[in-house]
Amino acid sequence: MTRERLYLYDTTLRDGQQTQGVAFSTAEKQRIAAALDALGIDHVEGGWPGANPTDSEFFNAAPSLTRATLTAFGMTKRAGRSAANDDVLAAVVNAGTSSVCLVGKTHDFHVTEALGIPLDDNRDNIADSIAHLVAQGREALFDAEHFFDGYRANPTYAMDCLRAALDAGARWIVLCDTNGGTLPAEVGRITAEVIAAGIPGDRLGIHTHDDTGNAVACTLAAVDAGARQIQGTLNGLGERCGNANLVTLIPTLLLKAPYKDRFEIGVKADDLSDLTRISRMLDDILNRIPDAHAPYVGASAFAHKAGLHASAILKNPTTYEHVPPEMVGNARIVPMSNQAGQSNLRRRLAEAGIEVAQGDPRLARILEEVKAREDRGYAYDSAAASFELIARDVLGQRPQFFSVERYRVTVEKRRNARDERITVSEAVVVVDVAGERKISAADSFYGDSEADQGPVHALSAALRHDLGKYADVIADMRLVDFKVRITGGGTEAVTRVLIDSADGQGRRWSTVGVSANIVDASFQALVDAINWKLLRDVSPE
Amino acid sequence: MTRERLYLYDTTLRDGQQTQGVAFSTAEKQRIAAALDALGIDHVEGGWPGANPTDSEFFNAAPSLTRATLTAFGMTKRAGRSAANDDVLAAVVNAGTSSVCLVGKTHDFHVTEALGIPLDDNRDNIADSIAHLVAQGREALFDAEHFFDGYRANPTYAMDCLRAALDAGARWIVLCDTNGGTLPAEVGRITAEVIAAGIPGDRLGIHTHDDTGNAVACTLAAVDAGARQIQGTLNGLGERCGNANLVTLIPTLLLKAPYKDRFEIGVKADDLSDLTRISRMLDDILNRIPDAHAPYVGASAFAHKAGLHASAILKNPTTYEHVPPEMVGNARIVPMSNQAGQSNLRRRLAEAGIEVAQGDPRLARILEEVKAREDRGYAYDSAAASFELIARDVLGQRPQFFSVERYRVTVEKRRNARDERITVSEAVVVVDVAGERKISAADSFYGDSEADQGPVHALSAALRHDLGKYADVIADMRLVDFKVRITGGGTEAVTRVLIDSADGQGRRWSTVGVSANIVDASFQALVDAINWKLLRDVSPE
Repeated sequence: MTRERLYLYDTTLRDGQQTQGVAFSTAEKQRIAAALDALGIDHVEGGWPGANPTDSEFFNAAPSLTRATLTAFGMTKRAGRSAANDDVLAAVVNAGTSSVCLVGKTHDFHVTEALGIPLDDNRDNIADSIAHLVAQGREALFDAEHFFDGYRANPTYAMDCLRAALDAGARWIVLCDTNGGTLPAEVGRITAEVIAAGIPGDRLGIHTHDDTGNAVACTLAAVDAGARQIQGTLNGLGERCGNANLVTLIPTLLLKAPYKDRFEIGVKADDLSDLTRISRMLDDILNRIPDAHAPYVGASAFAHKAGLHASAILKNPTTYEHVPPEMVGNARIVPMSNQAGQSNLRRRLAEAGIEVAQGDPRLARILEEVKAREDRGYAYDSAAASFELIARDVLGQRPQFFSVERYRVTVEKRRNARDERITVSEAVVVVDVAGERKISAADSFYGDSEADQGPVHALSAALRHDLGKYADVIADMRLVDFKVRITGGGTEAVTRVLIDSADGQGRRWSTVGVSANIVDASFQALVDAINWKLLRDVSPE
Repeated sequence: MTRERLYLYDTTLRDGQQTQGVAFSTAEKQRIAAALDALGIDHVEGGWPGANPTDSEFFNAAPSLTRATLTAFGMTKRAGRSAANDDVLAAVVNAGTSSVCLVGKTHDFHVTEALGIPLDDNRDNIADSIAHLVAQGREALFDAEHFFDGYRANPTYAMDCLRAALDAGARWIVLCDTNGGTLPAEVGRITAEVIAAGIPGDRLGIHTHDDTGNAVACTLAAVDAGARQIQGTLNGLGERCGNANLVTLIPTLLLKAPYKDRFEIGVKADDLSDLTRISRMLDDILNRIPDAHAPYVGASAFAHKAGLHASAILKNPTTYEHVPPEMVGNARIVPMSNQAGQSNLRRRLAEAGIEVAQGDPRLARILEEVKAREDRGYAYDSAAASFELIARDVLGQRPQFFSVERYRVTVEKRRNARDERITVSEAVVVVDVAGERKISAADSFYGDSEADQGPVHALSAALRHDLGKYADVIADMRLVDFKVRITGGGTEAVTRVLIDSADGQGRRWSTVGVSANIVDASFQALVDAINWKLLRDVSPE
């Protein structure tokens, strides 16, 4: 059976950049464009040349894409001048892309309210602008702004605008739900009516927003009705609540009926396993915490917490999974602290390089220890290094490198000699390294980090200052992230601290500490972090 | 025109608790149940009595709800014993709620694979369990687990299971897409077929998950097909990618055609303006950053960043907004420098009892100060008391009650006289109260709180220990919550601390502090908290 081609158009670099708090650099835009190209997206909309310096710079140094068509965005010419004489349009055309997408109005209210021009003039502006692109040999796309609202208000005029673009030679007419308020059933119905009125489905695109939480469903409804181009963004980035999320749509189109049987898209099944990585890369560029609950790619998307689910999953993953997580480059998470835990535990131990035979009674003892600690507020899902230390403790595979006798940390706010108000942290740590007592100190000014002047940084510096024969081993270690959560709340509150560490060999590991005292919780996590590093890098004597 | 009743069933406290990292305390469950009741939700599912200590404790101290029906969750009886003799079912029934929801299997594969019993036995277990509830005068709901997958695989058996529940007297038969893989069009089609096969739509509920980003759309598709109960959670909490988000669905049902014209729900248009607050309250309990892009209630849901949009919005908000933000208790965000930013500010000031005339130049100065601090990592959305102090500073309406000259806090871990390892915090604060210098100290053992032995508790105690003539005013003040967030990440990291305080008059207020030093950030928030309390309770001299 021949499958029909369905096209994907990414607007992360344009509509995605309208997200509050998002401002890509040119280099970031190039990195994202390359990832979209490698994934198999058909069009990459790069921005609006002339609208801002970053977008202009991006097109000046346009990346060479292998599979995707780089597209410039702009708007239809303004009234009172020809397409050739509109400087805003000229800046878009001069970016020199083979494909250009122009947004224009199709809602009568917006023509009269926002533009303040006669309806016919707006329609002529659309036709002239598209014809201008076609005359220059460009592929022309028309983004029909507010189309669904416009169609509800004045279907005749809205359709006239689409026909003007089509007759002028637009390759794609894109129905935009600009305000994001149209529900899926209505998107489907109106798209079908547009096709019935003469705009061919294989010339129709859909562009939705998530203001009612339906951007993905509205997109699917338009495809069901016959539209053949999907506009969206990575991670659903975009103004207000965001655009249709391509990271969600792509696996649905590739893995699920009826789409997998009816359509072919540029993204191939093999590319799909890069999806989680690409999604996280965008969050990394934006310095955002990835959404753990994102469909397909979220860290929790295949996490089975309910006891009944977890035990069934181990018998057969299809019992509680709609697709296999590895197909989208994600992984299953089964918490260890239930009846399903032992085989999951063995998998985690194997990941840490520890082999324990099935049925070994020590497995149950490790689970008990983990569970007892979880009851006290510890969490090992994101602290694999601390988990490994517990397991090695129970298994008798953990050398005692050093022990901490005492520590003291002081934070002081006072005036200095120049009468400036300063905050100083100072830490003193006393450790026993192979029978030798070591006392060392550090303060806020220790080391090269000016960023963190707090007590945890000082403690970390003091601990690492003098570990005797291990000093060299931990010299390349540094604290890269620090997360605090108060669990329980109110009078039962305990503080959980997660610390991420890294070293010169590119390793990154996470440890956890829990205490009613935030400094003590941090200290536990620091000690775990050092012990894990020593386990890796100290040769057995 | 008479509108048909559509019912809302909340499972935040049960399915929502299956979210990775979520573990509500009993007090938190009670707070959430009260908020759902006040909002107008029909059923509040409180948890699974007997499944874990928190759920059992919640039902033992069941909150009295005014409008909502508290519902206990459990599963149908197991094979080989009668409904009356199943101890798991007994624990659910013994919780004594007037309404009980039981989950049971309807997918033949799960009956044979996970339960390992004959298909007829499972169907009989459903019938017997529901009949057992009805015999005791309870309202019975049947959650048909994996219904859509089961219907695809073996429609005859899946329908037999539904009929068994219906014939046994279930008030509601709930079609569950447990694995979240069914797309909206199929949910609609199958729901219609179920109704055509004899299960009345006004006895049918829908329960969806967001594994393809379609939980909301699948819910609407089922309602379109005739289902009349919606199951969902606040903020779409729930296992894996979460359940259908009631916070998104409720405004759609109340504000948008065809739902607003066809249906009546328990939530009234007036209650809708509490929606944003309730959504943020849940995030607050979970110590989560609210999703800025959430439909309707997200901080960015009505943020207009694109230049063309922002200028049109000022002419007429309907140009780029699908609903008015104030209807859902949210607010429009247009770049700070303009008119819309100022009216938003005046509203916030009015909430704090401060009236400033429109056009007052001090409004712009307040906005500048807030913006400058936000750039440094402060956040005022959840720290209204700190925001009020800034505004009063600019307006010259803030008395100087006291100033802090210096402080010092020490955390020490050592062995005590009995050779036990203990952690002790000690704080010394020097303040100037109306020209009088006061030095006071406190340690971990100060006051009645044994829970928090950390440096912040000690600092708080020392600060409040001796504030001279204000000591009586702040005597009833206490620190009730403490949240820490590292913002920026990496080398630009700053620590933001949010502190919630309460007093004997039932007030609760929030303050914020930011610093590269966590103790210093906490101290700022503490000082703000005391100043706000003094502003409220010190009579002008």
